[in-house]
Amino acid sequence: MRFGTVRSNGRERVVAALDEQHGLLLEGVPSLAQIIADWPAAEPVVKQALATDRAGARHVDQFDWLPPIPRPGKVICVALNNSANTDRIMSGPKHPAMFLKPASSLIGHGQSIRLRADYGRVHPEPELAVVIGRGGVDISHDTALDHVFGYTIMNDLTSPTMRGEDTFHYRAIHPASDGSSGLSYVDTWVTYPMRYKGSDTFGPIGPWVATTDEIPDPHDLTIQCVHQGRVVTADNTANLLHSVADVIAFVSRYTALETADIIAMGTALKASAAGGSAVQNVDLTALGGPIDVSISGIGTLSNPVEMR
Amino acid sequence: MRFGTVRSNGRERVVAALDEQHGLLLEGVPSLAQIIADWPAAEPVVKQALATDRAGARHVDQFDWLPPIPRPGKVICVALNNSANTDRIMSGPKHPAMFLKPASSLIGHGQSIRLRADYGRVHPEPELAVVIGRGGVDISHDTALDHVFGYTIMNDLTSPTMRGEDTFHYRAIHPASDGSSGLSYVDTWVTYPMRYKGSDTFGPIGPWVATTDEIPDPHDLTIQCVHQGRVVTADNTANLLHSVADVIAFVSRYTALETADIIAMGTALKASAAGGSAVQNVDLTALGGPIDVSISGIGTLSNPVEMR
Repeated sequence: MRFGTVRSNGRERVVAALDEQHGLLLEGVPSLAQIIADWPAAEPVVKQALATDRAGARHVDQFDWLPPIPRPGKVICVALNNSANTDRIMSGPKHPAMFLKPASSLIGHGQSIRLRADYGRVHPEPELAVVIGRGGVDISHDTALDHVFGYTIMNDLTSPTMRGEDTFHYRAIHPASDGSSGLSYVDTWVTYPMRYKGSDTFGPIGPWVATTDEIPDPHDLTIQCVHQGRVVTADNTANLLHSVADVIAFVSRYTALETADIIAMGTALKASAAGGSAVQNVDLTALGGPIDVSISGIGTLSNPVEMR
Repeated sequence: MRFGTVRSNGRERVVAALDEQHGLLLEGVPSLAQIIADWPAAEPVVKQALATDRAGARHVDQFDWLPPIPRPGKVICVALNNSANTDRIMSGPKHPAMFLKPASSLIGHGQSIRLRADYGRVHPEPELAVVIGRGGVDISHDTALDHVFGYTIMNDLTSPTMRGEDTFHYRAIHPASDGSSGLSYVDTWVTYPMRYKGSDTFGPIGPWVATTDEIPDPHDLTIQCVHQGRVVTADNTANLLHSVADVIAFVSRYTALETADIIAMGTALKASAAGGSAVQNVDLTALGGPIDVSISGIGTLSNPVEMR
């Protein structure tokens, strides 16, 4: 099954996919987060509606899409998680490294990415995103996928210009290495991601969340990024360095995962064989949109770009 | 007025301060976020309760404190924002740089900071935190303080060990400098803060939010960090490099501020004249708690430490 969230007559409504082109507005369902909390008990209710109710059916283009989970508790993003990155990394952790986007940065399919000239370069990052079903802490690798409700698409917009601006080179204070109460200073680089990863509209997501039964293997999905009709990258989730189970097991040692939390798995960046380039060449501030991300079995997320 | 949130008979309840030692459980108030949304209309209702209702009065030590806003939409933290930092910064932005903590990392006054030995060093960072009242985007510097509901205390726990582990030195992909569709590679350091700033219990906050009428000048507050009864740092919010108004004006150009969002203003780090040291010397993983942060006019946030 595939679910989304739309605005209809001023209200947030949940939509279930009827087929590739049509969705059904569900009655009596307050939110997708509530469906996820009630899963699998909610499943037969939705199935019944899909089988019998056609009054709320619309073509997907007629919906005013919102993020499938408009206000997740947290949006965790995994950094540098493509095996193609490894030859560029001179030093770094062997485990998943992560940052957060604020829920308020999320936008739905078709909503505008809004940029300012002074944001500098802003490029797309096409990503598979996991929607957590049952929460947990210290989740084992073996049971990690039992905590997944489904999968969606995220475009993890990134401003390398703001990344550079928000990097400090400084002498960090550390305790003295002799174990005394004195101090030592260590030459350190640190980067703060709130602006370059979390500015408003930097989190296009959706339109659909596909439940796990539709995605037998989350590491066998094609993922494509298309800018103004030109294929930029064509990759496969097989190339993720840390798997969905790896990431869930690792992150839940540090932060409790909760129902409807989102984990974006990191960028698919392999250039398309048909003359694609790098996502870093697609400067949305200079070039505008639309920018699309498609994942097999889930759908296509497309967003226009406008200048603020 | 000062407000907090506690757990009473399994429910979240809002408390208003009667005096330094006593708080009153408010009836018919769903949450502090709701009071903030209804402010100033809610003010006379609370005043009336404080003047007439003593049935819900308790000594502050009897409350089971939660974060004053248990689930803010976002928690923005300003980095390296003490004027004492400036001589240690070799390069960095002149504007506020920011990261996020997840709402799920917040804990209340008296709740345990829970650490693992493999977190490495974890130190306190005593901070003034702003609670947003009326939200907004592109807020002007002149009107910025009109968007503040009040002030609270945050202990921005930090693991420099995990910070080091989650730092990459890599060759970032950039567009070719000749403007062609080719690529260039730029030697880059980048640090991802989810674990070192956002692990569970890394956000002690509260107990009280003091409304703005109680804090005539947020840049004339003493702020003290006490570990196991010993004063570590004694500083003043006058030493913040970027003011509350600066930060609100800056951040709201990038991210919409919303009612009950939290902004932690950055660490007060001046060593106490009475033999204090640096917060970086207070390794809570090795030394345990309790760790206290006090701000004049707001109160004291104290948390024990336990090992997971």
